[in-house]
Amino acid sequence: MSVIDRVLLVGGTHGNELIGVQVINVYQMWPARIQRSSFETIPLHGNPKAISAVRRYIDHDLNRSFDSSSQLRDTIYEAQRADFFRRQFGSNGTTPASFIIDLHSTTSNAGTMLIVDSLDELTMGLLGYLNAVHSDIKVYYSGESGRAKDSLRSLAPHRVCIEVGPVAHGTLDALFFQKTESVIQLTLDYLEMYNLNKFSSRESEVITLYQYCGVLDYPRDETGKILAMIHPQRISQDYSPLKPGEPMFITFSGENIPYSGESTVYPIFINEAAYYEKNIAACLTQEKSFQIQSSFS
Amino acid sequence: MSVIDRVLLVGGTHGNELIGVQVINVYQMWPARIQRSSFETIPLHGNPKAISAVRRYIDHDLNRSFDSSSQLRDTIYEAQRADFFRRQFGSNGTTPASFIIDLHSTTSNAGTMLIVDSLDELTMGLLGYLNAVHSDIKVYYSGESGRAKDSLRSLAPHRVCIEVGPVAHGTLDALFFQKTESVIQLTLDYLEMYNLNKFSSRESEVITLYQYCGVLDYPRDETGKILAMIHPQRISQDYSPLKPGEPMFITFSGENIPYSGESTVYPIFINEAAYYEKNIAACLTQEKSFQIQSSFS
Repeated sequence: MSVIDRVLLVGGTHGNELIGVQVINVYQMWPARIQRSSFETIPLHGNPKAISAVRRYIDHDLNRSFDSSSQLRDTIYEAQRADFFRRQFGSNGTTPASFIIDLHSTTSNAGTMLIVDSLDELTMGLLGYLNAVHSDIKVYYSGESGRAKDSLRSLAPHRVCIEVGPVAHGTLDALFFQKTESVIQLTLDYLEMYNLNKFSSRESEVITLYQYCGVLDYPRDETGKILAMIHPQRISQDYSPLKPGEPMFITFSGENIPYSGESTVYPIFINEAAYYEKNIAACLTQEKSFQIQSSFS
Repeated sequence: MSVIDRVLLVGGTHGNELIGVQVINVYQMWPARIQRSSFETIPLHGNPKAISAVRRYIDHDLNRSFDSSSQLRDTIYEAQRADFFRRQFGSNGTTPASFIIDLHSTTSNAGTMLIVDSLDELTMGLLGYLNAVHSDIKVYYSGESGRAKDSLRSLAPHRVCIEVGPVAHGTLDALFFQKTESVIQLTLDYLEMYNLNKFSSRESEVITLYQYCGVLDYPRDETGKILAMIHPQRISQDYSPLKPGEPMFITFSGENIPYSGESTVYPIFINEAAYYEKNIAACLTQEKSFQIQSSFS
């Protein structure tokens, strides 16, 4: 069993996602709240210049800047920032992070979503532990989405992203702020128990994962202009099944455009503002049930 | 009775309010939809560079750039844009606009809001006409807010702003898109009837106005940093009465901060993203009932 000795807690990886920015402000003011006996926790803003500008990024999405095989020009601010994180917290860095918690918000109806990149024993135990307290938490297994390679959290061997919504970019939301804080505290509690092997009971339970299987773009013309919006029946319907032939988009003249895939999918990140430029109207997932052994103190 | 001979329809005065941007795209493609026999309608994007950047503005808020007494430096993009609008559509311009319809969206729970700057006979008749079709429309009488002097719509002697929300900036919403279009069509119909004096019946009715009486900022420290969020009980409660002593904000540590004003107000634009930098957590209004003579064809 590996030991977690340093947790990096990052908010403001996207500068207009204010909940994460403020959570970090709070913990930098009261660092004792995130310390545990068996590891240190470092609270840090991901993208300070983008936070000042209240924009997602300055030159390039920081959360797509960590793939070492696709080198970004070093004049790009986020390339410099990624380099700082790599040198400081990467596996060969000065103070490597064993676990990264990255804080995000979305304009889509995500609720409180945990994004995980792998289904190892530590991660599955965490999901079971969180699920026991917050049964409304949704789990997105991003697996093959690319984020396991290019995201900030990809620097650490273990990680989770806390994603809450709907929250308009550039705004705060008190309930999601409190929910984010609660999930952070529970995650740190779990890592402490994991380190100290303090689990006193184990229960087998089934949890639902939404596993990435692709993306769906808006209908566009040959120049890239959007030709339709999310259909009113589909707006805010994250995690709901979408069957072939069901309305997905509606044109500006009011014609329905059905989903043309071949099998039922479960769209999430529906109508996320930052994904318009990434040609993503929704991420498509498959709903899967997983049997896990949850451990409790 | 003055005659409306030219209507300027503007979307994308703020570049990240996509509904207005797309409405203009649609009408530029199918201009016949907004023509009427007694006047011409010109559909135009307010801030093309901000639209391309999907940002509210480039250098300065265009909708605060029209006050001729506070001259902006001409290197500011929005000053150049305001100058174009003034030369083209101002009272001494090449083709003066008699009426401006300006399209907006907000992250606050505005519903479908008509913003008016004066309570002249033409405007009140329009409100009665719209109210008869869409009884859910809210009316914000911005009066002394400053917008009658510095907004884009202030160029024309008659004007209305259509504001819809909640819509996250940088996103579309099909239902609010359709509602915006419907209000535009009804407004053009009304102006046609007004020009042709085609009203066949008049009814006396009472409508509710929310009249501007000030703004409320977030609690901040001496450096301007925000210390609290909109209280969960107050979020999305636009148009609801707020009494002295009722919770308005909540700090990041969870303490309630009550409203400290001296009398009941009706906050609107609660938690509008673009207003954080303007030191506005909400616009305060007083609820007033007005007796109007509505005219119908």
